[in-house]
Amino acid sequence: MALKVVILVGGGGGAKLAHGLAQILPPKQLSIIVNTGDDFWLYGLRVCPDLDTMMYTLAGMIDKTNGWGLTGDTVHVLDSLRRFGEDTWFRLGDQDIATHLLRTERLRAGERLTDIMQNLANNLGVDQRLLPMTDAPVATTLDTLEQGELEFQRYFVQYRWQPTVTGIRLAGIEQAAMSPEVAAAISGADAIVIGPSNPWLSIAPILAVPGLRAALVQRDVPRVAVTPIVAGQALKGPAAKLMAELKYEPSAKSVAGYYGSLINGFIYDEQDEPAPMFPVRATKMDTVMRSDDQRAVFAHNILHWIESWNEA
Amino acid sequence: MALKVVILVGGGGGAKLAHGLAQILPPKQLSIIVNTGDDFWLYGLRVCPDLDTMMYTLAGMIDKTNGWGLTGDTVHVLDSLRRFGEDTWFRLGDQDIATHLLRTERLRAGERLTDIMQNLANNLGVDQRLLPMTDAPVATTLDTLEQGELEFQRYFVQYRWQPTVTGIRLAGIEQAAMSPEVAAAISGADAIVIGPSNPWLSIAPILAVPGLRAALVQRDVPRVAVTPIVAGQALKGPAAKLMAELKYEPSAKSVAGYYGSLINGFIYDEQDEPAPMFPVRATKMDTVMRSDDQRAVFAHNILHWIESWNEA
Repeated sequence: MALKVVILVGGGGGAKLAHGLAQILPPKQLSIIVNTGDDFWLYGLRVCPDLDTMMYTLAGMIDKTNGWGLTGDTVHVLDSLRRFGEDTWFRLGDQDIATHLLRTERLRAGERLTDIMQNLANNLGVDQRLLPMTDAPVATTLDTLEQGELEFQRYFVQYRWQPTVTGIRLAGIEQAAMSPEVAAAISGADAIVIGPSNPWLSIAPILAVPGLRAALVQRDVPRVAVTPIVAGQALKGPAAKLMAELKYEPSAKSVAGYYGSLINGFIYDEQDEPAPMFPVRATKMDTVMRSDDQRAVFAHNILHWIESWNEA
Repeated sequence: MALKVVILVGGGGGAKLAHGLAQILPPKQLSIIVNTGDDFWLYGLRVCPDLDTMMYTLAGMIDKTNGWGLTGDTVHVLDSLRRFGEDTWFRLGDQDIATHLLRTERLRAGERLTDIMQNLANNLGVDQRLLPMTDAPVATTLDTLEQGELEFQRYFVQYRWQPTVTGIRLAGIEQAAMSPEVAAAISGADAIVIGPSNPWLSIAPILAVPGLRAALVQRDVPRVAVTPIVAGQALKGPAAKLMAELKYEPSAKSVAGYYGSLINGFIYDEQDEPAPMFPVRATKMDTVMRSDDQRAVFAHNILHWIESWNEA
């Protein structure tokens, strides 16, 4: 296919669908804009969970059981940190630490995260454009009923997204800017896909980068979101639980409504009923990606559907 | 024994002798002033080879075959760094990296190296005073015939001390200061020992910290150096080779002469001849420490000799 595709992702389902697109598109035709609101500092290292999940997935190095980290990774550094009395609540693998070391050293030297990630990815044989949503530090912070204010990874990993969320803030977002690479990817795209990542925790930070949402809406091309909610449930993670806490009905329709005028197309799962009608052009597909092949098939089906729009 | 002892060390023999003293003295009676001129930055981590060798030795965690690093350590992080195209000339073990991570994070937060090392050491069950020679960054740099200017670890590890040394410089030494802890240890010592470390590369940086040499000489107590040269050879490392390059005769006597008025006692090895006489009070001992027990025996013999001075 000759389409140039931009996909917005966090980790999880979004990364899987991006991997599906990577299997069927030439590398130069795929730009992946990745949430960096989950990024945080740990033991002096800059950790970028969604960027690394995406990079490792494309490199074929991801631990598929966990959906994050590197397959076969060990935790000797972490074990030693514990010996020094550290509370090792976040599982940092040894091989993974190499990524964090190089990224952190280059960030401290003044390099842009965009350049660093592209270089790291290239070294692992990843040729797609792997784009941080911004080069500025943004920190997704949650207000919770039980634990008060929580940095994203504390909420997600340490407390296993069990606290009740009452609010979500994006510290630093006002000072963030789109990189030239993100702006160019959006302005050059033939199709924009919002991956089946958590709309509030993974996609919203990307859309909140000043100018980014407007840049997307301005593009008169297919702008299609894929539901992360199937039969009222998230396949993994807190999306459905969070929707209830934020007073949304946990459904694909709510997700489509949340994206509103940002999208002009929506893909819900075949397990869901089409009625009541979605506010935008919608179609149903098997959105559950159980294998690498299913990722590619799903990506193919999405692009096939998008291409059919011109014929209609 | 009731003596309060200060020992000056680098890695190698000095660390072994300090370990001997640690075996026979109560922890509060032993202060170890450690060279930090070898410290350097690697992948954004602050690495302090001599401090860590000393800490790991006292904790019983040192790799005895190498004389540095942790016993049984792995190199998974390093292997991954290589995958990103890094030249991994310095062997950083995984467990060792935990030490560097915590130290670096705390240095960046503004903590003093002295406080950090004492805390790390305490966590490993080391209760002796483990004192960096200074909290300021000092970098031993070598001018070499074959490779030009070399940072210490490049000379020592990457080039295996094979280049011919034409000069030694201590970048940052003018801005360095003794810590209150080093000053207090020296002013309270009943005996001062200069360990059998490399006089030019390990001990000279300590002595060059402004005020430190003067503080030592002012103390009217035994100030005893132990030869690192036995039968014209270094037991390990570049001491003898370096002496020849710096136009010294590679001998125990040259070492004693180099220390000059800093010392009032000198211990040479029983393999060496006593004549020509040393310029200071001297005695011969078995200075080769082949086991932990021999370290303790050697330390005991040194303190025994020092105590005999009062009786003479």
